[in-house]
Amino acid sequence: MPYRSPVTDYTFLLNHVVGYDSVCATETFAEAGADMVEAILTEAGRMCDEVMAPLQRVGDLHPARLENGVLRSSPGFADGWKAISEGGWVGMSGDPAYGGMGLPMAVTTAVNEMMSGACLSLQLAPLMSQGQIEALAHHASDAIKDLYLPKLISGEWSGTMNLTEPQAGSDVGALRSKAEPNGDGSYAITGQKIYISWGDNDFTTNVCHLVLARLPDGVPGTKGISLFLVPKYIPDENGEPGRANDLKVVSLEHKMGLHGSPTCVMQYEGATGWLVGPEHGGMAAMFTMMNNARLGVGGQGIGVAEGALQHALAYALERRQGTSLHGYSIAAHADVRRMLMTMKAEVFAARAIALACAVAIDMEKATGEEYWAKRAAFLTPIAKAFGTDTGVEVSNMGIQVHGGMGFIEETGAAQYARDVRVTTIYEGTNGIQAMDLVARKMMDGGEIAFRLLDEIEANAEQARGTHKELAEAVWQATETLREGTEWLVAQTDMDDRFAGAVPFLRAFARVLGAHFHLKAAMAEPGSPRETLARFYIDRMLPEHAALLTHAQSGSAGLYAMNLDDLAA
Amino acid sequence: MPYRSPVTDYTFLLNHVVGYDSVCATETFAEAGADMVEAILTEAGRMCDEVMAPLQRVGDLHPARLENGVLRSSPGFADGWKAISEGGWVGMSGDPAYGGMGLPMAVTTAVNEMMSGACLSLQLAPLMSQGQIEALAHHASDAIKDLYLPKLISGEWSGTMNLTEPQAGSDVGALRSKAEPNGDGSYAITGQKIYISWGDNDFTTNVCHLVLARLPDGVPGTKGISLFLVPKYIPDENGEPGRANDLKVVSLEHKMGLHGSPTCVMQYEGATGWLVGPEHGGMAAMFTMMNNARLGVGGQGIGVAEGALQHALAYALERRQGTSLHGYSIAAHADVRRMLMTMKAEVFAARAIALACAVAIDMEKATGEEYWAKRAAFLTPIAKAFGTDTGVEVSNMGIQVHGGMGFIEETGAAQYARDVRVTTIYEGTNGIQAMDLVARKMMDGGEIAFRLLDEIEANAEQARGTHKELAEAVWQATETLREGTEWLVAQTDMDDRFAGAVPFLRAFARVLGAHFHLKAAMAEPGSPRETLARFYIDRMLPEHAALLTHAQSGSAGLYAMNLDDLAA
Repeated sequence: MPYRSPVTDYTFLLNHVVGYDSVCATETFAEAGADMVEAILTEAGRMCDEVMAPLQRVGDLHPARLENGVLRSSPGFADGWKAISEGGWVGMSGDPAYGGMGLPMAVTTAVNEMMSGACLSLQLAPLMSQGQIEALAHHASDAIKDLYLPKLISGEWSGTMNLTEPQAGSDVGALRSKAEPNGDGSYAITGQKIYISWGDNDFTTNVCHLVLARLPDGVPGTKGISLFLVPKYIPDENGEPGRANDLKVVSLEHKMGLHGSPTCVMQYEGATGWLVGPEHGGMAAMFTMMNNARLGVGGQGIGVAEGALQHALAYALERRQGTSLHGYSIAAHADVRRMLMTMKAEVFAARAIALACAVAIDMEKATGEEYWAKRAAFLTPIAKAFGTDTGVEVSNMGIQVHGGMGFIEETGAAQYARDVRVTTIYEGTNGIQAMDLVARKMMDGGEIAFRLLDEIEANAEQARGTHKELAEAVWQATETLREGTEWLVAQTDMDDRFAGAVPFLRAFARVLGAHFHLKAAMAEPGSPRETLARFYIDRMLPEHAALLTHAQSGSAGLYAMNLDDLAA
Repeated sequence: MPYRSPVTDYTFLLNHVVGYDSVCATETFAEAGADMVEAILTEAGRMCDEVMAPLQRVGDLHPARLENGVLRSSPGFADGWKAISEGGWVGMSGDPAYGGMGLPMAVTTAVNEMMSGACLSLQLAPLMSQGQIEALAHHASDAIKDLYLPKLISGEWSGTMNLTEPQAGSDVGALRSKAEPNGDGSYAITGQKIYISWGDNDFTTNVCHLVLARLPDGVPGTKGISLFLVPKYIPDENGEPGRANDLKVVSLEHKMGLHGSPTCVMQYEGATGWLVGPEHGGMAAMFTMMNNARLGVGGQGIGVAEGALQHALAYALERRQGTSLHGYSIAAHADVRRMLMTMKAEVFAARAIALACAVAIDMEKATGEEYWAKRAAFLTPIAKAFGTDTGVEVSNMGIQVHGGMGFIEETGAAQYARDVRVTTIYEGTNGIQAMDLVARKMMDGGEIAFRLLDEIEANAEQARGTHKELAEAVWQATETLREGTEWLVAQTDMDDRFAGAVPFLRAFARVLGAHFHLKAAMAEPGSPRETLARFYIDRMLPEHAALLTHAQSGSAGLYAMNLDDLAA
């Protein structure tokens, strides 16, 4: 049951659903036309299918290990990294001036997704590098960019993000790591960081850590945090890895899944680092990296969902149990068919949302218009949370399709669910994403939200001629979502927004998903895409109403229960 | 963060919500009054908290092993089994004539749940014995009952269920195991069985297998299947374990969770067995065992959900991140509070449904009335599917409450989710449960379903005086469910029922849950139970409408997509 990267799904979505034509109509991305994108995705897909997919199970069975302080990655992962970096997939969206391909995020998002479906634990390595490349490109000095970017983009070196400390998880501002000026323009970094994905490896010649720490005059909280670049080996005068820096991997976590990806506890003991961005301006630089990574993590969820869907489909088409008028395999049974179609419809919706977010990022870059920046910022938490929730739910359904075999590790169905489970947590839990959506991303009074709703309704109006029932259902749901949005932005007590943030985000994703399914049906009337759209709109979209009722329930009902009674 | 068995929740539910007063008003269960039940649950709870809970993690870290064909259970499990059997908890509901306590299933269900929350992998052992005790009590000859029941009930011996074969999972009728008469009243059983939970152990002196097999004149399909009792050691003339039977454990499965419970591949090579029930009557006997086990498995899901809830609560009350007006721990944050209350409200609903099902079983036994039998049969698939779905969802939410720590195995949050995952699959997948509900259990034209709806509405009417809004919401939801039920029973093409079976079952559970929450609010007005009921009815009940829309969508939309397009 080999994994096949779903290249045609991406090209269909880009060309007909998420407005990629606007991206390649810009001067910035003029070279990334439809044919070029198809060729690129095909090439990336081949690498995913042939090189990465066979490593998925290997990483689970032979986790990364720490031997006397030296990290040993899973067998074959070094070759996998080599294929990824030689293909240019680490630096896909990197600036061509530093060796990148300068491709739109829409394309990068698709490739990242394909890599995630093939082997999530290895894909996390280039994803971390991409976040670092993005952060350095926006915030680092020219000297740092000239030295680091070419090597990060080529994959000769790799990058990591060091945010979390034991007492500072979702509350980044509580961090205690310190940075003291060395007097030569560098800083001495001291502290412990946890949950550092790919904090070390045995296949790049250097590992570059972006570390959040506080300068001596940094105020408490997030406003006193600065960002530092701290390499494992300090570059010598030729820019080659020199003496070992004062940092080490203390231990690796024993996790539920993602065994091929080492999750490190890092200790910095006066390690030499260089400031990225202004003093005390670390949060802004970190958000550049985080926003990039959040969309990337959303793509991880979707990629794993695709992998789990293909895996379950292959099993269901082969396995025979009982009889049905509709065929010999269990895929002929109505309930198994329901599960498979749910998985497929959900992957489509989540993928379209992620690509639409990427398109907004590309349009922002190409046009500089604030609207696109705000649209991208609004869609990012939705893409992250809905993409990763989809990963968890679809992989869970994949286990169910397998019946008893789903619980047996040998089949690989369980690994998808175990691996993807962390994605709803890292880069900001999905609760944090939802809070970001209803607070920071709607401080504009919901302007971007309403503009999206207008766009959905305008499209539904246009669909009425050919897809009357589907269009009406989407239009009605959007009106209900509009009412919910109006209620939400009217709440001045943030706890009332937060109480319903998660169901609100999910309702928004449900309606966006219906919108994109409708566009797919309009693009290919009478096709299987229309059948899938009808399935989604008839059976899955109705959930939005209950979610919005929940979203508008306020916080009083939560705090009416005191903690002692909750624990009683 | 030690596990505490929720004894007061059970006594509250039994005394005020699920009608247990009718059970102990019968002659059969006259001795099991409220005070006696509380004493029994307290005693069982102590054993769960002190003996079983410490074994939960041990079983995960030190799985059962097979050494040269000999099964080695996890360290401490032998002592755990000893405590369970010496407490009388294996044979709680067993006939006192054979050494059982003769307790109602309502009490047994509560104890089974508590044991599941403490250590699921060990609890599966007595649960399997209970199913066998039930099957033998109903279907075996007096000779078999006299020989086996006392030893099974005392826990000296244990029991297993052998249904599945590689090609015969959900489709039991496809099994190939053979039984040939030996001419002395015994039979020679030959075949391979898979997924045999606790197929062997090192703490009972015999292991008794109930094996489905086909006699030489058995027709193909389920009508040609017979049930046999096949002990590991053949009892000698004194009823003590004698020569080893011709059966063996071939291998153990490597599973996603439940590592403390050995899942065996069993090989029977002309093993000696005895018929239980009539020739070719194996399915009826199996269903006795299965129905018992289905409610038991529902209880496993609920027990694990309770364990995961307590575990997440303890973490949330201790962990500090960020600030809130409502307290210092993360439990003060609205979104964490939402998760914890969702978990608690869902556990209550699932628990009430399981206990109501057990009450119906007890009333059937005590009164012999067909109504109670049908009610129990109707509630069993709901209790199984909703209880185990709750186990999966609540344990998954428990991981989320832990944030990054949820993905680290050390905390134990992930183990709940890994262990419980199989419960939606074994003893009939939840899809099979839903199909059973909408087909076999509604062949009466929905008589029992409508009677339940009448009961819910009558209670809501009664609640209008004190709980106007809650009562109205429950009443309205019941009307919507009534319409959905009417639609369902009107469908003559079973695929149209099956297409919406899972959402229908879930909608029914949602409304039943609301009914029981309302009863709790009525029993203790103004209490935290009312706060929880309001949370559930305001925020979780609304889901029923979307589920019912889905349930009534029919099969045409599923089969409009052909398999090639699904796999494309």
